[in-house]
Amino acid sequence: MTAITDLSSADLADRLARARDAHGGFKARGLKLDMTRGKPAPEQLDLASGLLTLPGNGDHTTATGEDARNYGGLQGLPEVRALFARPLLGAPPEQIAVAENSSLALMHDCIVWALLKGVPGSQRPWSREEAVAFLCPVPGYDRHFALCEEFGIRMLPVPMTPDGPDMDAVEALAADPSVKGMWCVPKYSNPSGEIYSEATVRRLSAMRTGAPDFRLFWDNAYAVHHLTPARHAIPDVLEACAAAGHPDRAFVFASTSKITLAGAGLAFFGGSPANLAWYLARAGKRTIGPDKLNQLRHLRFLRDGEGLTTHMDRQRALLAPKFSAVTEALDRHLAGTGAAAWSRPEGGYFIGVAARAGTAARIVRLAGEAGIGLTPAGATFPHGRDPDDSSLRLAPSYPSLPEVALAAEGIALSILLAALEAEQAARDAAR
Amino acid sequence: MTAITDLSSADLADRLARARDAHGGFKARGLKLDMTRGKPAPEQLDLASGLLTLPGNGDHTTATGEDARNYGGLQGLPEVRALFARPLLGAPPEQIAVAENSSLALMHDCIVWALLKGVPGSQRPWSREEAVAFLCPVPGYDRHFALCEEFGIRMLPVPMTPDGPDMDAVEALAADPSVKGMWCVPKYSNPSGEIYSEATVRRLSAMRTGAPDFRLFWDNAYAVHHLTPARHAIPDVLEACAAAGHPDRAFVFASTSKITLAGAGLAFFGGSPANLAWYLARAGKRTIGPDKLNQLRHLRFLRDGEGLTTHMDRQRALLAPKFSAVTEALDRHLAGTGAAAWSRPEGGYFIGVAARAGTAARIVRLAGEAGIGLTPAGATFPHGRDPDDSSLRLAPSYPSLPEVALAAEGIALSILLAALEAEQAARDAAR
Repeated sequence: MTAITDLSSADLADRLARARDAHGGFKARGLKLDMTRGKPAPEQLDLASGLLTLPGNGDHTTATGEDARNYGGLQGLPEVRALFARPLLGAPPEQIAVAENSSLALMHDCIVWALLKGVPGSQRPWSREEAVAFLCPVPGYDRHFALCEEFGIRMLPVPMTPDGPDMDAVEALAADPSVKGMWCVPKYSNPSGEIYSEATVRRLSAMRTGAPDFRLFWDNAYAVHHLTPARHAIPDVLEACAAAGHPDRAFVFASTSKITLAGAGLAFFGGSPANLAWYLARAGKRTIGPDKLNQLRHLRFLRDGEGLTTHMDRQRALLAPKFSAVTEALDRHLAGTGAAAWSRPEGGYFIGVAARAGTAARIVRLAGEAGIGLTPAGATFPHGRDPDDSSLRLAPSYPSLPEVALAAEGIALSILLAALEAEQAARDAAR
Repeated sequence: MTAITDLSSADLADRLARARDAHGGFKARGLKLDMTRGKPAPEQLDLASGLLTLPGNGDHTTATGEDARNYGGLQGLPEVRALFARPLLGAPPEQIAVAENSSLALMHDCIVWALLKGVPGSQRPWSREEAVAFLCPVPGYDRHFALCEEFGIRMLPVPMTPDGPDMDAVEALAADPSVKGMWCVPKYSNPSGEIYSEATVRRLSAMRTGAPDFRLFWDNAYAVHHLTPARHAIPDVLEACAAAGHPDRAFVFASTSKITLAGAGLAFFGGSPANLAWYLARAGKRTIGPDKLNQLRHLRFLRDGEGLTTHMDRQRALLAPKFSAVTEALDRHLAGTGAAAWSRPEGGYFIGVAARAGTAARIVRLAGEAGIGLTPAGATFPHGRDPDDSSLRLAPSYPSLPEVALAAEGIALSILLAALEAEQAARDAAR
């Protein structure tokens, strides 16, 4: 297709009229589709239906003979740590802890403890510093940014590249001693699916930081959440940090929320021995121990690394066609128009769209009129403000495949219409 | 028995020799008994074995048709709140929230949020105040005190009376604006089993506080944990505070840890509408939602209020004989000696012993030599320091009934021996 900016006035008017018709026709179908939330679909949850009757009658004894029903076991069962540590956190089992159902909760806890107590290497609690800032690759995960906002942590956006965050920008900013942390979703990044390259991981591990207690908040949310047979790997960040002489630089987080059950999974913390000891000392004031029955439940269900891989292959079989349906519709309607660029993620839960600058909010409105709920424009930026009004996050996991295909049509039509409108407006203004 | 202080020199020497013999004889049996931990016994956990296969095949739909396996539902399922709100928190279901497996974790979270954000009515976050102090009825719960210690909150001990904390002392101390909170275990208090009287609850609700954002941390840990058919009730603190014109004064906490499974229960937060909104706003940054499958599991298992009552009657049938075995042994060996006073709790998990001043640490050592693990002396006081070295906490729930009976013998012998030693030492010193 011809790029919109190259259209003649007549062609632009014609295309705009046709785009309005197409969008109007879609609107008239009165659909109600939701592409806002990175939630697993019911059929994905059905894959883990075995959990609903586990651990099973009388089965409450751990590998070391403990009673999983009772108090205690703060770090989590060794056999459960052995199952998840390497694939999800890239850590030895003795360097991780198992917690309740939310890795976001662990990130929250690490932040409040850092603020009130400091982390290993801190000269004082972060709340006693004059200012605390985090580096925020953008677009990124809105709930990360919401935690910073909640606790008054300044957010410094860093652009993403296909290899991860722009490392020149990161290194320049990290030299500031008020920069205490950085959000990272290193594999199949939220929302655009980037995979941090080996060089990126090495530079993050090795860079000089102004703060002696700088921490990578390494949210490995999609470690085994592949959408292709490639099953990408990234370097283990704990190992990389240790090798670079900064053994305590990374806090690693993961969960089974998008492996087994979104509301009833397990979350994990991983870190250097010093960071783990710090985490356990803090967590030990907060709780007498995690839900070990849910740990046993997961172990009995997944059994071993092979069981985990097989399970994720089944997830992929359900998810990959939905992602393809979206990119196929975007390709068909938008290729060559310059109305947007979009990611073709090989894992994770989202497709990132970089629409023509100044059109993202308009697209969300147009899609809404057409019965399609989209994540608010700007949601993937600190404070919900995308300076270019360009970034959109599409979440194809929850609706059924036919619904996703339909929604993708409506989204593509909305993106196209918004771009044509914007071009027309720009030419009108230039007249 | 004659009071030890009234014994003649000869009788004291004789009693001391016999007590040493008895203790030595007990020691020679080479027992290994643990009375340190308020953990349910395996047979108590067996009462809830139905949970191990619940919610059951395909059962994941809530009363309002939601999928309990997926994300969301921050406040907890309405049908689960309806079951637990009144009996455990004395609150309407719409004023509580359901969380993971630990009410201690909720207390922790409320404290860190108060420190970093403030609570409704705060002029500033508590961490920005010059000093923050909590009133701590003593003896009390060590994990409450450990939270204060963790976050640098000064602890002001208040003596307990049979009706709850000494309210004259509480009212005098609460006038200080740095006093921001108070720990309360209002029913079957940990460790001595006191039940706050109606007058105590009213005075706590009505008293003038120096801090406008003062909070009762109302840990209703033993709301339905009766040891007698009396099933004591106390006034609902939320109602009492509202009636007294301080609707936001209380944060209420409870859990099913000692109802169903100690490691895999549900925890609850209750408060005024303003406090609940505050809690949910904070919790909503921390997590996308609680484990609703475990909520469903509990609902399917206990069914309704009657199911809860029946279940707790079964718990009582297992627990009450153990408590009787302890008090029976203490009565038999110590009545009239003045060596100690002990509580006869009508609920809860502990028996409090007020031993002769200066002997508690010695008793723990003597019991240890006799093969009986006791909670360290002082553990029930801020910073683990009992100024009178008098207070002991006995936890009869976990060992079997014969073991408890045996341990109680050894404990009584240790208490008696320590008192006789102390009397002898006092007389030697006075000579």
